[in-house]
Amino acid sequence: MAAGPPRPAELEPVAFLLGTWRGEGVAEYPTTETFAYGEELAFEHVGKPYLLYAQRSWLLEDGSPLHFERGFLRPLGEGRVDLVLAHPLGVAEVSEGTVSSGVLELSSVAVVRTSTGDPVTALARRYELRGGELLSEGRMATEEVALTLHTMATLRRV
Amino acid sequence: MAAGPPRPAELEPVAFLLGTWRGEGVAEYPTTETFAYGEELAFEHVGKPYLLYAQRSWLLEDGSPLHFERGFLRPLGEGRVDLVLAHPLGVAEVSEGTVSSGVLELSSVAVVRTSTGDPVTALARRYELRGGELLSEGRMATEEVALTLHTMATLRRV
Repeated sequence: MAAGPPRPAELEPVAFLLGTWRGEGVAEYPTTETFAYGEELAFEHVGKPYLLYAQRSWLLEDGSPLHFERGFLRPLGEGRVDLVLAHPLGVAEVSEGTVSSGVLELSSVAVVRTSTGDPVTALARRYELRGGELLSEGRMATEEVALTLHTMATLRRV
Repeated sequence: MAAGPPRPAELEPVAFLLGTWRGEGVAEYPTTETFAYGEELAFEHVGKPYLLYAQRSWLLEDGSPLHFERGFLRPLGEGRVDLVLAHPLGVAEVSEGTVSSGVLELSSVAVVRTSTGDPVTALARRYELRGGELLSEGRMATEEVALTLHTMATLRRV
């Protein structure tokens, strides 16, 4: 893996995401206090027609870990993509969306959870490459709250 | 993360899995040819009451990547666990099961997929620590095949 396998042509629409991004954001939600967080996003290709996606975030205040996401982003042709993510706390997400001109938008088609999983019911996210920065926005719905803006971060490639 | 955060007490039942495991296995399924594969499994703790799980496998014949899994394993108390996994090709899994005396057994409570995701309908897995080796078995059901033994591997800690 050191030299790296050739990049499949199917990955071209999402190639602008490749690499590791790091920055800061703000999380807000009707049921919690607003707080500032640090975030790292990594999009890696392994020679297959999908990217490996890894996210971690931490509380800016003390560096303690907040959230992790792990999964796969897959271009489907004609600007379509899907994203499959595992979240801690018993939740998994399959999402579909579009990618065009440095903008990736996804909405969940299913969010499932184990019997003690967090009560998340829908997720949506938007990434935009703007002036070398990656702007990310996440929305979340739970059993008690309709789909609402939850996270906003600005990341730079590291 | 270099020194590592303290390990939460909740992780004790799954602590025998911590680290990176590597070995070889055989995959068989009614709809495909039997083949030998290499596999690496990693269970990492980050100071939270769950483990980060990462799997990759490759064809033994030429080393080319076969499959990846990414997710989270969480002890729930009283020998219960849940596992949330993202798979490539548009599939996510949430599973529940038990851990006891070096044996971890899990069955999916939901397998979801995007509109072009692989037609997987159920997954089950069993890991057993035996004489320093980790034996893993995976079962899979699809729209056409009932839950059937699919993978068997023997891994050693690296």
